[in-house]
Amino acid sequence: MQTISFLGPAGTFTEAALKLAPEAIGKTWKPVGNVLDALMDVQTGSSYAAMIAVENSIEGGVTASQDALATMPGLRIIGEYVVPIRFSLAVKPGTELADVHTLAAHPVAYGQCRRWLQRMLPNHAHLPASSNVASAQLLFDEPSLADAAITPVTIREQVPVEVLFEDIQDNPTARTRFALVTTRTDLPPRTGRDKTTLIVELPEERPGGLMAMLEQFATRGINLSMITSRPIPEHPGRYRFVMDIDGHLHDARVADAVLGLRRYSPDVTFLGSYPRAIASPVDVDRAYSDEIYAEAQHWFDQLER
Amino acid sequence: MQTISFLGPAGTFTEAALKLAPEAIGKTWKPVGNVLDALMDVQTGSSYAAMIAVENSIEGGVTASQDALATMPGLRIIGEYVVPIRFSLAVKPGTELADVHTLAAHPVAYGQCRRWLQRMLPNHAHLPASSNVASAQLLFDEPSLADAAITPVTIREQVPVEVLFEDIQDNPTARTRFALVTTRTDLPPRTGRDKTTLIVELPEERPGGLMAMLEQFATRGINLSMITSRPIPEHPGRYRFVMDIDGHLHDARVADAVLGLRRYSPDVTFLGSYPRAIASPVDVDRAYSDEIYAEAQHWFDQLER
Amino acid sequence: MQTISFLGPAGTFTEAALKLAPEAIGKTWKPVGNVLDALMDVQTGSSYAAMIAVENSIEGGVTASQDALATMPGLRIIGEYVVPIRFSLAVKPGTELADVHTLAAHPVAYGQCRRWLQRMLPNHAHLPASSNVASAQLLFDEPSLADAAITPVTIREQVPVEVLFEDIQDNPTARTRFALVTTRTDLPPRTGRDKTTLIVELPEERPGGLMAMLEQFATRGINLSMITSRPIPEHPGRYRFVMDIDGHLHDARVADAVLGLRRYSPDVTFLGSYPRAIASPVDVDRAYSDEIYAEAQHWFDQLER
Amino acid sequence: MQTISFLGPAGTFTEAALKLAPEAIGKTWKPVGNVLDALMDVQTGSSYAAMIAVENSIEGGVTASQDALATMPGLRIIGEYVVPIRFSLAVKPGTELADVHTLAAHPVAYGQCRRWLQRMLPNHAHLPASSNVASAQLLFDEPSLADAAITPVTIREQVPVEVLFEDIQDNPTARTRFALVTTRTDLPPRTGRDKTTLIVELPEERPGGLMAMLEQFATRGINLSMITSRPIPEHPGRYRFVMDIDGHLHDARVADAVLGLRRYSPDVTFLGSYPRAIASPVDVDRAYSDEIYAEAQHWFDQLER
Repeated sequence: MQTISFLGPAGTFTEAALKLAPEAIGKTWKPVGNVLDALMDVQTGSSYAAMIAVENSIEGGVTASQDALATMPGLRIIGEYVVPIRFSLAVKPGTELADVHTLAAHPVAYGQCRRWLQRMLPNHAHLPASSNVASAQLLFDEPSLADAAITPVTIREQVPVEVLFEDIQDNPTARTRFALVTTRTDLPPRTGRDKTTLIVELPEERPGGLMAMLEQFATRGINLSMITSRPIPEHPGRYRFVMDIDGHLHDARVADAVLGLRRYSPDVTFLGSYPRAIASPVDVDRAYSDEIYAEAQHWFDQLER
Repeated sequence: MQTISFLGPAGTFTEAALKLAPEAIGKTWKPVGNVLDALMDVQTGSSYAAMIAVENSIEGGVTASQDALATMPGLRIIGEYVVPIRFSLAVKPGTELADVHTLAAHPVAYGQCRRWLQRMLPNHAHLPASSNVASAQLLFDEPSLADAAITPVTIREQVPVEVLFEDIQDNPTARTRFALVTTRTDLPPRTGRDKTTLIVELPEERPGGLMAMLEQFATRGINLSMITSRPIPEHPGRYRFVMDIDGHLHDARVADAVLGLRRYSPDVTFLGSYPRAIASPVDVDRAYSDEIYAEAQHWFDQLER
Repeated sequence: MQTISFLGPAGTFTEAALKLAPEAIGKTWKPVGNVLDALMDVQTGSSYAAMIAVENSIEGGVTASQDALATMPGLRIIGEYVVPIRFSLAVKPGTELADVHTLAAHPVAYGQCRRWLQRMLPNHAHLPASSNVASAQLLFDEPSLADAAITPVTIREQVPVEVLFEDIQDNPTARTRFALVTTRTDLPPRTGRDKTTLIVELPEERPGGLMAMLEQFATRGINLSMITSRPIPEHPGRYRFVMDIDGHLHDARVADAVLGLRRYSPDVTFLGSYPRAIASPVDVDRAYSDEIYAEAQHWFDQLER
Repeated sequence: MQTISFLGPAGTFTEAALKLAPEAIGKTWKPVGNVLDALMDVQTGSSYAAMIAVENSIEGGVTASQDALATMPGLRIIGEYVVPIRFSLAVKPGTELADVHTLAAHPVAYGQCRRWLQRMLPNHAHLPASSNVASAQLLFDEPSLADAAITPVTIREQVPVEVLFEDIQDNPTARTRFALVTTRTDLPPRTGRDKTTLIVELPEERPGGLMAMLEQFATRGINLSMITSRPIPEHPGRYRFVMDIDGHLHDARVADAVLGLRRYSPDVTFLGSYPRAIASPVDVDRAYSDEIYAEAQHWFDQLER
């Protein structure tokens, strides 16, 4: 049976993303220790896919994900999933807030709940845990070490805790975006609400170089929804850009832009076209529609009858 | 035998342009009264081609040429020719400068020689002539009316005048650019020193509209060598642009730009690709060469093996 | 009394433009033979101003005007005027159409009426005249030479002709745009419906150079209403651009763009800001208004309290 | 005495950055639990400055830093510092590699050393620690819980460990960039090797919106060295951009671009100009130099003598 690697253990936000992915149904989910291991499983073929965080992760690894996608050949994103970041205060059944002196929590999750903790548990001690699930598991495995845990709201599926408080995170709208990565080279079919992920290295460092690259999108009416520059360790002072654009490689304007981009820079990594998590359709000006592309081509073909 | 229409009579600068055109050898040259008549001969098929002035004409009609090319369907330029504008003072043999009291000259040619005339013939009278050849012909047909004529330096091929002074024009570097226009839809073969003429109507009047159009060229490394806006009489406040770009439609970057232009504006008139009069090759950055176009296409075709 | 030079004689379209100019009232109007003479009168101070054709002239000289404005220092446009190009067939009172065998006409005007003449006077002869007024005058001065004349519709103010037919020109919407040129360096006050004329030489010949220049306007929301490239005789292969932009130098966005242009190219000629002939106000996106300029400056000034 | 807050405890990479900052000499260094607390200390005035990670942090918080800088008013960066990310394997003196069964490590640091650990310690257990210093401290505080720790190479300044192996991190060139943040509104003096940090919200979501913004830099010859889009939680589908540009607000071109940016978007946060960590001077094309700015202004001032 096919395997999907993810940042484990069971109960992490990454696993929550897997539960949103139709592609993951009926496959074996393999928890691994970090993003690189997950992607290496895919690259070596030992797993069919990996679910990794690509934006706003509180479990770490976003820039590692981006750098790995840029440098590990043969990877393709086939879907994206957005998971709200919500934390609970969980205890062994029977424990009350007043009994909580030591709190088990992954250091990053701990940092996300500081304001609530200052207000509700001003005098607790913090016991670091290696994951947002390990913190809850500790309550049963080492009951003498911690009285409560910060965990995702879904923790009860893994550990028989009692949830004392929900939504204790400081930022009520935090969410992490995940990508399902494979080595498939066929593309998910076009849905009209797709995005395409590209990584491009500028051919030279000069003012306006980034703008010249973005012109490839602007002259085709293509919107960017994400851009991040990443320094290239081997070439100090040079950058690659990780970008999400609206549209599918099978949209004529996207194919045209990707070709233009490849001419502009020999270092383009196409990381896939796939339905975006936000279900609203991509808004395309008619001037950049497939119809206009076809019409212009037809006109062009008549120029030399 | 095939006919070529031109602004006559024999002896005009337009005829001088015909003498530069290999395509014109062995064909019948038909003098007509103006640019529109010449183009109408082509459009109706009564002539194979027309030679018309497209830049800096002193015989009139450049904006008329541009407007006609924009609005008369089915025309194509197959060659361009540059003729230096040089005038002589011609007389009937035996006449001396001191004898010259009345000067026959086309009004525009007359305007081009004012400084020389002020210096050398301060007290002459001007008799307008209908062309730069008619002025010389008058010396023989109506000897009582004029004593000298302003004519092209080549006039002795038509009229047995004596040339008293050469290069009497105020501007020593003036030159007119001519185009040979047909209805052929096959293109002259690519030479590496070609230009392409286009007329484009902007889809809407807005700041940046022209720049958005020119981006189609800039993002493909294509140089413009001429641009002129022309008001569109039927749409006050709107413009079309007559443009010459470096390169041939068979250059991948030019084909790509013409397609982009046609998507941007539904009103594109392709007026042909043809060798430019200046024999120097078009300088193309390698990033926009046919090789890079082919390489990018090959890369693209591998994305979905 | 102050003098204004214009392309004469009385009765030309250029004189019709003078009648539209409030600045011309009460001044002496001096007819001259061509555009260069008119501008030289201004430059030397012998005239206060010159009225010259700058677009679509049928009396010649538009490119000459543009080249002169680019190369003669110290000139400024203070107003523009648009004159419809309408021609009449005029005769000595009593002459009927059937009596017309020879037609006096300036060669360019003659070319503008060809279709009407083919239909109504298929068998006439053409006698060239040196101006659109001289043609009418000939009917009285040399009645044996011509039976009718092509003249502007306003001819009866100069010559006691009878007009047999009005609006005989082929193009019913033709119009010529004129500019009133001085050496004044104060600017006509801002009216909200102004234009600014600039001539710019590109600093180097390269693809995208023109676009980089036009960005100076686009990034400030400024619309171009006219652009023409003109070859620079002294620098083969290089161009200057004559441009009209919407707005007045006293508009913050125009001042900003003119400064940007001057940094981009050391060869900028500012030819003035003046009310445009079309009376509709310039449409300015609020983002480029004086208010936003002031607001941004205020914000900027607070950055280092 | 003035206080500087930093992500503690003593021994973190953030503290290593403080050691590089001349501004930090002679001040009290106050360790805090996370980036938000550090910035809040500055904003409330309880600390003079905060040192925070802004790129590639392995101690977490880069996106938190960016979002905090975007939303907490009144903050200014006055310097940046780059710290190489190097880890050691540390033990209590006398322990040998063969004795190591349990390894204390911050979860993120643990992830950075996986390959080395797989090779050298394939059978260890991981005990999570709350920081890269707490891991070493554990060896002395709770010797029964862990036999070795992953810590920065500088750990011996804090804890009397023995370092068994240096540079055990997977990525030999990893480095984190830090910023020193204050509420000062005077700027560090211009050095010729400066950068400026800006956060800009696009006024509307549309294709080309980002490019229109970047044109503000490109038309002034300004290079971007970092850009990251950040979703705006309150406005789904809209983005702000965190950008580093080369140059100082006191450079004419930078001031001009910042003004242009503010007109383009009312939501601009200026986060300061300061010497960049890389000591090489900013390369400026002469066309965008202060001299050319001054020259153009002088030319402009003469237009209306």
